[in-house]
Amino acid sequence: MATRCGDTLLFAQPPVIAARAAIGGKKESLSPLAGGFDELYSDNFFGQKSWEAAETELALRTARLCLKKAGTTEKQVSLALAGDLQAQCTGSGYAMRGLDIPFAGVFGACSTMAEALGLGACLTSAGLADGVLAMASSHFCAAERQFRTPLSYGAVRTPTAQWTATAAGCCLLRPTGKGVGVRAVTFGRVVDYQIKDITNMGAAMAPAAASTLLHYLRDTGTAPDELDCIFTGDLGQVGSQLLAELLAAEGLLLTNHADCGCLLYKGQEKTVRSGGSGPGCCAGVLCSHILPQLEGHKMRRVVFIATGALMSQTTFLQKESIPAVAHLVELRAPGEGAEEKKP
Amino acid sequence: MATRCGDTLLFAQPPVIAARAAIGGKKESLSPLAGGFDELYSDNFFGQKSWEAAETELALRTARLCLKKAGTTEKQVSLALAGDLQAQCTGSGYAMRGLDIPFAGVFGACSTMAEALGLGACLTSAGLADGVLAMASSHFCAAERQFRTPLSYGAVRTPTAQWTATAAGCCLLRPTGKGVGVRAVTFGRVVDYQIKDITNMGAAMAPAAASTLLHYLRDTGTAPDELDCIFTGDLGQVGSQLLAELLAAEGLLLTNHADCGCLLYKGQEKTVRSGGSGPGCCAGVLCSHILPQLEGHKMRRVVFIATGALMSQTTFLQKESIPAVAHLVELRAPGEGAEEKKP
Repeated sequence: MATRCGDTLLFAQPPVIAARAAIGGKKESLSPLAGGFDELYSDNFFGQKSWEAAETELALRTARLCLKKAGTTEKQVSLALAGDLQAQCTGSGYAMRGLDIPFAGVFGACSTMAEALGLGACLTSAGLADGVLAMASSHFCAAERQFRTPLSYGAVRTPTAQWTATAAGCCLLRPTGKGVGVRAVTFGRVVDYQIKDITNMGAAMAPAAASTLLHYLRDTGTAPDELDCIFTGDLGQVGSQLLAELLAAEGLLLTNHADCGCLLYKGQEKTVRSGGSGPGCCAGVLCSHILPQLEGHKMRRVVFIATGALMSQTTFLQKESIPAVAHLVELRAPGEGAEEKKP
Repeated sequence: MATRCGDTLLFAQPPVIAARAAIGGKKESLSPLAGGFDELYSDNFFGQKSWEAAETELALRTARLCLKKAGTTEKQVSLALAGDLQAQCTGSGYAMRGLDIPFAGVFGACSTMAEALGLGACLTSAGLADGVLAMASSHFCAAERQFRTPLSYGAVRTPTAQWTATAAGCCLLRPTGKGVGVRAVTFGRVVDYQIKDITNMGAAMAPAAASTLLHYLRDTGTAPDELDCIFTGDLGQVGSQLLAELLAAEGLLLTNHADCGCLLYKGQEKTVRSGGSGPGCCAGVLCSHILPQLEGHKMRRVVFIATGALMSQTTFLQKESIPAVAHLVELRAPGEGAEEKKP
């Protein structure tokens, strides 16, 4: 059913993403990808009284929309795997009050969407779940005041800084059927290059992306140019450059890399600086841009590597370095999962 | 391989807990269960400079000890599923820097150990992982200053308050072999009874425990007296009483219930008040007390229901109520997994 090669799981019968939904906020409305989002709101409070409650509302709406687009109900879903950046993952935990679905919380910071998709693909492909919701969210204002400074301070953003997306993405995984296939999953290892600059997440996360990608390529015997695109989650301009350098040192020249954080805010670099970030950034780009391209057969085979920085405000104040992790899922256009390549 | 009945997964070939380790701190040394812990330290700093770093050290030592007791190495483990109570799960994330094992972070607050065991049992039983580490930790001092008041304030503890354990528990799951079997898993739904008292977690979590237990009993057609014991994670005295009342309202009289939080600090009620809590509480009791009893065939069949309160300090200050979740694993003494009962 599934083959294990090193850190990578290969699904002979790829589970499919039967439905997807992406919702964004105000800044995301200005994105070149805006057209791919299902809903965009100019009110970043989403009708709530706090930013944290706004994120919960955003996540809940996205999950409900995904179920609606799938033409299914909560009863037809076995499990939800979801997470976010708020302390104790309250964005997701509170959203799950509104859904009558068993819930296992996951935490991988900005790598959450790939982690949830990867675990969900395992469970559905093994017949352990009929349907799994994989979801991640983030909210700019909730993240800023938690990790950095209160917004009203108007702190100057450094050139390496990234902008936490106010966005959520949700996928419904099914064991079989129509949809983009999840062909392989590689769970990453924690990597720490002793970066301590909380305004340079790209530098902290690039080594994790390189590590997981290298594991996947070796495990599956894939050459990078066999992939239509290598999508990373939120390395931004700075982290993307570092990823290219790290891979070059391994003899790999990346010509088909794109970063969700750069794609989401293309043209807004003056305010966002290095790019987008947050679990909702790559979750939103996955559901608004990557999956539609695969569904429309504009791409055939891609990898989606979401990267997460695992620090907190407390560890930052304690002058700890920033460990990072990256999880990878290989996605195939509908009908493309069948051809096999044995590593 | 596995049968799905409602929210419950039944493993025809139960994966096994091939090794386990439990480490505790100073207060845990005074526990009636102290003899079952592998290591106990009088220095709650575990040689580190902060309580947060101490928890990381505690988690890392426990994982390494578990591998050592299993006579195995990091290379022989496919994945670690771990979590804790610190914001952004840094206790576990930083510990994983020290282990060369792919890592998927989980967050279920104090329900983390059952969630990790449940997901790990799914992956190993389906052949998706050769070995999985399932781990949870907590640290009294790190939790107090995060969720309540700095310790040095010397705040008076209410009778409903619970004491976050300074402890970690780690299990190594294997698809087959010697060890306690994980026969079934029930992932819980988020339940919110509108409890807002942050010093009464037992009340917030009891409804989640009741919900998950009722799902399991119905899904599997099990009567409570077929179980040698129903272990809950950390309801404490107050939550245990409420659980009994909630189940009585459903026509169930619990005569074989024990709470890990009550067991761990039995005799120390004057300081701990209602009982123990924290992800490390039930993880430690599982590995020091429950698993040894099953291994020694003093018990044959039990359920382990870890309960988690999903709030944060931020949602508390925003006057939100406290949602909760409970995950259940059914454990069988070695060699007891074979007899089947079809629901």
